[in-house]
Amino acid sequence: MELTDTALAALLAREPVARLATLNREGRPHLVPVVFAPSAQHIYSPIDGKPKRGATLARIRNLDANPAAALLIDHYDHDWRALWWLRLDVHAECVQRSNVPAAEFAAAIAALTNKYPQYAATAVLRDDATLIRMRIVKQVAWSATDG
Amino acid sequence: MELTDTALAALLAREPVARLATLNREGRPHLVPVVFAPSAQHIYSPIDGKPKRGATLARIRNLDANPAAALLIDHYDHDWRALWWLRLDVHAECVQRSNVPAAEFAAAIAALTNKYPQYAATAVLRDDATLIRMRIVKQVAWSATDG
Repeated sequence: MELTDTALAALLAREPVARLATLNREGRPHLVPVVFAPSAQHIYSPIDGKPKRGATLARIRNLDANPAAALLIDHYDHDWRALWWLRLDVHAECVQRSNVPAAEFAAAIAALTNKYPQYAATAVLRDDATLIRMRIVKQVAWSATDG
Repeated sequence: MELTDTALAALLAREPVARLATLNREGRPHLVPVVFAPSAQHIYSPIDGKPKRGATLARIRNLDANPAAALLIDHYDHDWRALWWLRLDVHAECVQRSNVPAAEFAAAIAALTNKYPQYAATAVLRDDATLIRMRIVKQVAWSATDG
């Protein structure tokens, strides 16, 4: 099953959390929950600041070596008829203000701060923020009940 | 941060859903939400029946070729101070009633049916069920606030 562009955009705008899988240098999958927002043709996920530097560095290191990643957005429910998931195979890379057009970076930051009011109180989207920029390579959607 | 054995066992018994990352033959990460239950020294996740045969086969195929997988259990909350996650690097393999001791298979099925009352109405744990059996290789826990 494949979502329409409209349905996909609505889902990306609405769902607050995704799980990102990258590969480490030993070829083992690495998993972490992420916040994210769509902007133009990409999905952006911020690398937060100090609190999880260890995990953060692993993610960046992994993507520098291998941009093949996957993003999963899903819904769990006690009622299994309500289950659904969307898996996005993505080409992911780390970007900073210094290496992408200023308008693109500003739009990505705006998309994140608009989606997450928490950023009003959490100053992690600094000028030197690193964002993971993802381009969708393939999507697979599944739902326990159609629709 | 590493959870104590007791805290880990409690979390595995309580949390209803995890995300499983495996690797496909192109070396790309594959992601799917899973239900799971701990039993003895392993974590078991059932391969459900017909509804998602495509995804199911991918998972089995991937693990047959590469047992290195990762399981992520996390909590998302609007209040970011409540965020936490637990990542388990696992050695995963598919088992069936025919290729493990009868007591082990029965205990795994019992653990799943006890944890998920849904299995009373959803007959996916048949005699020929396939289970993913996972042995924890490494755990990493993170919490926005300690504890």
